[in-house]
Amino acid sequence: MATLNVDLGDRSYPIYIGQDLLNSPDCFRPFIHGKQVMIVSNTTVAPLYLEAIKSSLEGYQVDEVILPDGEEYKTLDTVNLIFSALLEKAHNRKTTLIALGGGVVGDMCGFAAACYQRGVNFIQVPTTLLSQVDSSVGGKTGVNHPMGKNMIGAFYQPQCVVIDTATLKTLPERELAAGIAEVIKYGLIRDQAFYSWLTDNISRLSECDLDAITHAILVSCQCKADVVAEDERESGVRALLNLGHTFGHAIEAHQGYGKWLHGEAVATGMLMAADLSARMGWLKNESVDSLRALLAKANLPVVPPNDMSEEDYLSRMKVDKKVLDGVIRLILLKGIGDAVVTDEAPDQLLRQTLSAGDRLGQV
Amino acid sequence: MATLNVDLGDRSYPIYIGQDLLNSPDCFRPFIHGKQVMIVSNTTVAPLYLEAIKSSLEGYQVDEVILPDGEEYKTLDTVNLIFSALLEKAHNRKTTLIALGGGVVGDMCGFAAACYQRGVNFIQVPTTLLSQVDSSVGGKTGVNHPMGKNMIGAFYQPQCVVIDTATLKTLPERELAAGIAEVIKYGLIRDQAFYSWLTDNISRLSECDLDAITHAILVSCQCKADVVAEDERESGVRALLNLGHTFGHAIEAHQGYGKWLHGEAVATGMLMAADLSARMGWLKNESVDSLRALLAKANLPVVPPNDMSEEDYLSRMKVDKKVLDGVIRLILLKGIGDAVVTDEAPDQLLRQTLSAGDRLGQV
Repeated sequence: MATLNVDLGDRSYPIYIGQDLLNSPDCFRPFIHGKQVMIVSNTTVAPLYLEAIKSSLEGYQVDEVILPDGEEYKTLDTVNLIFSALLEKAHNRKTTLIALGGGVVGDMCGFAAACYQRGVNFIQVPTTLLSQVDSSVGGKTGVNHPMGKNMIGAFYQPQCVVIDTATLKTLPERELAAGIAEVIKYGLIRDQAFYSWLTDNISRLSECDLDAITHAILVSCQCKADVVAEDERESGVRALLNLGHTFGHAIEAHQGYGKWLHGEAVATGMLMAADLSARMGWLKNESVDSLRALLAKANLPVVPPNDMSEEDYLSRMKVDKKVLDGVIRLILLKGIGDAVVTDEAPDQLLRQTLSAGDRLGQV
Repeated sequence: MATLNVDLGDRSYPIYIGQDLLNSPDCFRPFIHGKQVMIVSNTTVAPLYLEAIKSSLEGYQVDEVILPDGEEYKTLDTVNLIFSALLEKAHNRKTTLIALGGGVVGDMCGFAAACYQRGVNFIQVPTTLLSQVDSSVGGKTGVNHPMGKNMIGAFYQPQCVVIDTATLKTLPERELAAGIAEVIKYGLIRDQAFYSWLTDNISRLSECDLDAITHAILVSCQCKADVVAEDERESGVRALLNLGHTFGHAIEAHQGYGKWLHGEAVATGMLMAADLSARMGWLKNESVDSLRALLAKANLPVVPPNDMSEEDYLSRMKVDKKVLDGVIRLILLKGIGDAVVTDEAPDQLLRQTLSAGDRLGQV
């Protein structure tokens, strides 16, 4: 088992990474301070792993709330189901919530923990690659609003994160690929050496080779932990983690949440960011080509949806949280491993990228 | 104009108290950092004061959302109206929310500010005596759940609080009395001298004499600010501020929110706490009598509702946020000006208090 520490002063917490950790009481019990535990999971993950985690929680009052599965359920109404379950079982301020599932479960459970009785403890147990390398690190919690993704939420840190890599064996291929998109993101934004390793080992990841996956999770979590420690509330460097997300969120929102997986939309969004960077003369065309090839090998989409106009993108991008005073701020690349936040992208070049379709990178 | 400072490190903020502050731009403009302002008010207060506050906000994009009036609307669904208004008007992370109204508006607006894009600025402009002396100081925000009051929320501090005492001139008598209940609370829990002043000046308060009211607001806010500075997240002394609230919440919840005003329920709840304290030998009977007389002079109820059984109280009290591991913790009095948190109240004596009806204090 590997341990990473996310350094946030009195909100610091450890991330445990290894096989079969669900059955390791030592990963959970030191972080449960009361006598009550509420496991929050969904209809897909609960049948697979609920019993395993319960075996680590003997002696506590263990209750569970099983949510419907899917990004379309990441709403205030669904979070209210968690509040109702907590109140029905008379959970008090010392209760601990455990998020067992992917990013949607983690975001909602974390937000419920932030708000229940104005804040109770929670533990993240991410069971998808995407949530393991992304949403379980950094304390962003929340839900979507019909008018925008992740518009309602809180910064709220877990007591610990338990990443059991064995859970990836039951993950559908498409979701594994979506997770790999976020892994590639870390290489792109600030780790050229890791990006090179990924180009050499991408098929091992796609085949769910646990040694390769464990290495990728470790490097990714370390990268995210470093960035978050530097900038917990996203006033600076943390914005880089949104590479591909402004384009990606527009795709997800326009297609309807759940149709494109988040990681798929981010993959295409990263390619769009690379394309725009190349149009601005910041990135070589070969780098865009290399990224497209890497994404394609990872079974990720490299062509934006063909039913979206420039205006469809722009109207969505204008309500992005990074917009300030009407100016769209984007994360672009000055090279592989060198992302920057900028509001300098000329409108004309941005529109070229938005309408490039299957010619992304042919600048 | 008087200024109090709530000392919370980098979350410190000023409270301004005086007449006609709504029309004082200097109370607002230094605390607005972006170009956008969203005024959150309700159908009762907006027609009275919306234009006045807008006159202080020239040059900003000023939008408004007018909520239905009443504790029964203090729900997640109503907070969602605020999120929708913010998104419809494309408010960004630098927006400032202004709560113009009583405690319900303040609690919901503060919670919306805590959650919108994971946290934006807000300013409290409380227009009822209750919210001026209580909910506008201390950063408690949130909404009710059908199964419990204030069960969903956040600790979130405003940029400043603007108390315009002139707004009390339009406050209904019953609501003024409800505010006086919380003023009396501060004397009871830790300021015997203020309690004596109140017994001498209670009719001036009931007549809305602004000099007397201003003094009462100042002392009350100072008391609450001191307590909150000592214990922002309610792990210790802050719990004392809940004197009368465990009984009061049970009354409010059982009668249906809005039937008894919060301050009315707290008034009767404080008398019940005093009654129980006397039964335990902690408080003299004369002190209970003096409290009953003071509350009655302030036009506050001194008899609990006659349709509530012991079990009605106990079942409600068991989901109170102060309950830990099934033990009911109460705020009781060891004297006037000397409140304590205790789990020592014998069940038998508690039941006597719960069934005392109009014989409270006749121990």
